[in-house]
Amino acid sequence: MDKVAAVKGTRDFYPEQMAVRNWIFDAWRAASLRNGFEEYDAPIFEYLQLYTQKSGEEIAAQLFSLTDRGGRELAIRPEITPTLARMVNQKINALARPIKWFSIPRLCRAERPQKGRLREFFQWNVDIIGSDEVLADAECIYTAVDFLRSVGLKDNDIVVKLSSRSMLAALLLSQGFAPKQLDTVYVLLDKRAKVPEDKFGEMAAEQIPDAALRDKLLTLQAVQSLEEVEKLCNSDQAQTALSQLSDLFNCLNTMGIAAFCQFDITIVRGLAYYTGPVYEIFDCSAELRALAGGGRYDNLLSGLGGSQVPATGFGMGDVVLQILLEEKGLIASQNNKLDAFVVATDKSLFDQSLQLTGALRQKGFKVDLSYKQSGLGKQLKQPAAQRAASVLILGEETLNENKVTIKNMASGEQKTVSLDTLLEKGLF
Amino acid sequence: MDKVAAVKGTRDFYPEQMAVRNWIFDAWRAASLRNGFEEYDAPIFEYLQLYTQKSGEEIAAQLFSLTDRGGRELAIRPEITPTLARMVNQKINALARPIKWFSIPRLCRAERPQKGRLREFFQWNVDIIGSDEVLADAECIYTAVDFLRSVGLKDNDIVVKLSSRSMLAALLLSQGFAPKQLDTVYVLLDKRAKVPEDKFGEMAAEQIPDAALRDKLLTLQAVQSLEEVEKLCNSDQAQTALSQLSDLFNCLNTMGIAAFCQFDITIVRGLAYYTGPVYEIFDCSAELRALAGGGRYDNLLSGLGGSQVPATGFGMGDVVLQILLEEKGLIASQNNKLDAFVVATDKSLFDQSLQLTGALRQKGFKVDLSYKQSGLGKQLKQPAAQRAASVLILGEETLNENKVTIKNMASGEQKTVSLDTLLEKGLF
Repeated sequence: MDKVAAVKGTRDFYPEQMAVRNWIFDAWRAASLRNGFEEYDAPIFEYLQLYTQKSGEEIAAQLFSLTDRGGRELAIRPEITPTLARMVNQKINALARPIKWFSIPRLCRAERPQKGRLREFFQWNVDIIGSDEVLADAECIYTAVDFLRSVGLKDNDIVVKLSSRSMLAALLLSQGFAPKQLDTVYVLLDKRAKVPEDKFGEMAAEQIPDAALRDKLLTLQAVQSLEEVEKLCNSDQAQTALSQLSDLFNCLNTMGIAAFCQFDITIVRGLAYYTGPVYEIFDCSAELRALAGGGRYDNLLSGLGGSQVPATGFGMGDVVLQILLEEKGLIASQNNKLDAFVVATDKSLFDQSLQLTGALRQKGFKVDLSYKQSGLGKQLKQPAAQRAASVLILGEETLNENKVTIKNMASGEQKTVSLDTLLEKGLF
Repeated sequence: MDKVAAVKGTRDFYPEQMAVRNWIFDAWRAASLRNGFEEYDAPIFEYLQLYTQKSGEEIAAQLFSLTDRGGRELAIRPEITPTLARMVNQKINALARPIKWFSIPRLCRAERPQKGRLREFFQWNVDIIGSDEVLADAECIYTAVDFLRSVGLKDNDIVVKLSSRSMLAALLLSQGFAPKQLDTVYVLLDKRAKVPEDKFGEMAAEQIPDAALRDKLLTLQAVQSLEEVEKLCNSDQAQTALSQLSDLFNCLNTMGIAAFCQFDITIVRGLAYYTGPVYEIFDCSAELRALAGGGRYDNLLSGLGGSQVPATGFGMGDVVLQILLEEKGLIASQNNKLDAFVVATDKSLFDQSLQLTGALRQKGFKVDLSYKQSGLGKQLKQPAAQRAASVLILGEETLNENKVTIKNMASGEQKTVSLDTLLEKGLF
């Protein structure tokens, strides 16, 4: 028979990798719960139509699609936001608002695997639906930073780069860009941080032939602060969007995370469904892809057949995050796998070692035992391989005096206790 | 835009359902860890070939298959055992044996949805690889029962029905059945518990035309105990397999779970890859499908291109389990979602309420706040909707005396404390 390999661009999680994944997921869950979010999940696949309707083009091109027995077209979820919108739309009248939900979905995208990008990954999603207050945007950003701080990252490790799609649109329109040019400009700006300045100039010349308009864009993309934006504002819409973004920065300051946040007008979040504030989180050295991205998407629920309900949220993948945490030496080391490992030196002690193991497990200890009555030397290799904190040895003392030797694997210290005490009281 | 529905036969996990799922998963994890198993996982899809090679026909017919951009045929995993075999084969020389691993994979099967069967479900898998001792089989069964007991099921709620594929094969061969007839008999026996006796007779007559052989099968399927089996044993192979099964029952007795276990010769586990002891776990009223099924599969790893390494394990799905737990009233009720909900009676208190919320969250409390400065009455509806244990009210006392009122939502009791104390010490 052939040896079949794993599919390229996917990961096997052996226990060592799984421990890291669980450590990250646990920290995501803890940050979500203390900030008032509840967990949800949904099927791994949806009807294809859910994604072709409203997802960004980049995502729609990367779908893993399949057909069920009835010939219906399905797709493995490439993101969970359309599913979230579907679920909320289905029960909108029964859900207390604001709806604060989080999820840690497994997602698949049929793209070419490269550093920081895989064909299967996990993404922490945090969303608030039913509030148009900037505090809702601030809460999402705060929750992301809260998690990143909880795993040991500081304000000189990571930065939240923030802008506003509604502000950018209003600025561009007031400066003479046509509505149909906006998407072109978004794609250009999205590339800004990824190419050198002269290359950006070339791309701009190609996409925006009108030199006067192009100069306006080049001025705009160089803007560094909200004060500079204010000088360029010459419409009520631009002013309103600017003041909303300014309120958001004030909230983040009151919440104590201003040091993590920075205005960056080139943040546009591709062509997807964003309508208001948008942000991406990067490592400060800017060597990796974005750790997370999000923003306000007030039209997605109505776009998917629901009512007009405002919404905001972000997604943070596990792949880039894990690369950064490894680089910074922040992955927590694994604990002992077992509290104790039971070995017996004589076959006649088999039943007793089995009963002791069972009794300790019932008290909640993680305990294992040697399956074979091999020599003591061989049996004693297992506790180390299984990362046991201690070894319980049943031997002559057990046969003669009903006693057990406990050896601490770290210190090497040994002591002898009665089997009855162990059975009754457990290990500690 | 159209409102797109969820795919039939799948489940949305709103927070209420997600809490139940997490409660079950947590109990699965706890039982696995205390019995010495480590968690692993793998991609949601594999190359199609991994399943067409060795899975039972029933499973192979229910695959959700898809094609990647390079034209390679993939399938969403319908079970995780082939993946487990693949992963172990890849690293067999680096893994300390016995390998004791568990996983809680999401699985998909393209079958018609019905009670207890969905097209997407979760299945707890517990396996021991690299040991041919019956204790390894016993440990898996013990871990299953350990979990079921931990969620409140008793020995009059559930039963582990045990047999042995190797014993059954040896018995049949020694009684004159041809090797090529074994699969037919397995399928017949697998149906035994699901049809009335006369219907079973009809099916047997159809499948086994030879009346003498058929009588032997009818005698065999009526056997109730290992003592009765012993009388029918007339080959060394049958005797060896019987004695192995008998050892397994002795182990289960020593481990204290004999009351949950029962010999049942009709347990064969379909046509899949089992080679030794096999078992299924049922509710005692036998009204539901099997809760779990497993057994020894010593040839799967070599069948998938690896070395000859013995293996044993089981899978327990979440769907039938949850139906049973609901019927028995054993689903744990949800705790409070939040420790506290902060409301402010005046707009000027907004910054203080935001800071108090942040400070309490940093101490690990689950805290939320009202986003809008609406009237106090309206704001006080939220803590109940969000299942908060207490409400913290910032009002005139905060403006004048820097004090906060804490209201216990269960008792209705109120007390007033200083904001500084709360910020410094937290809630309790």
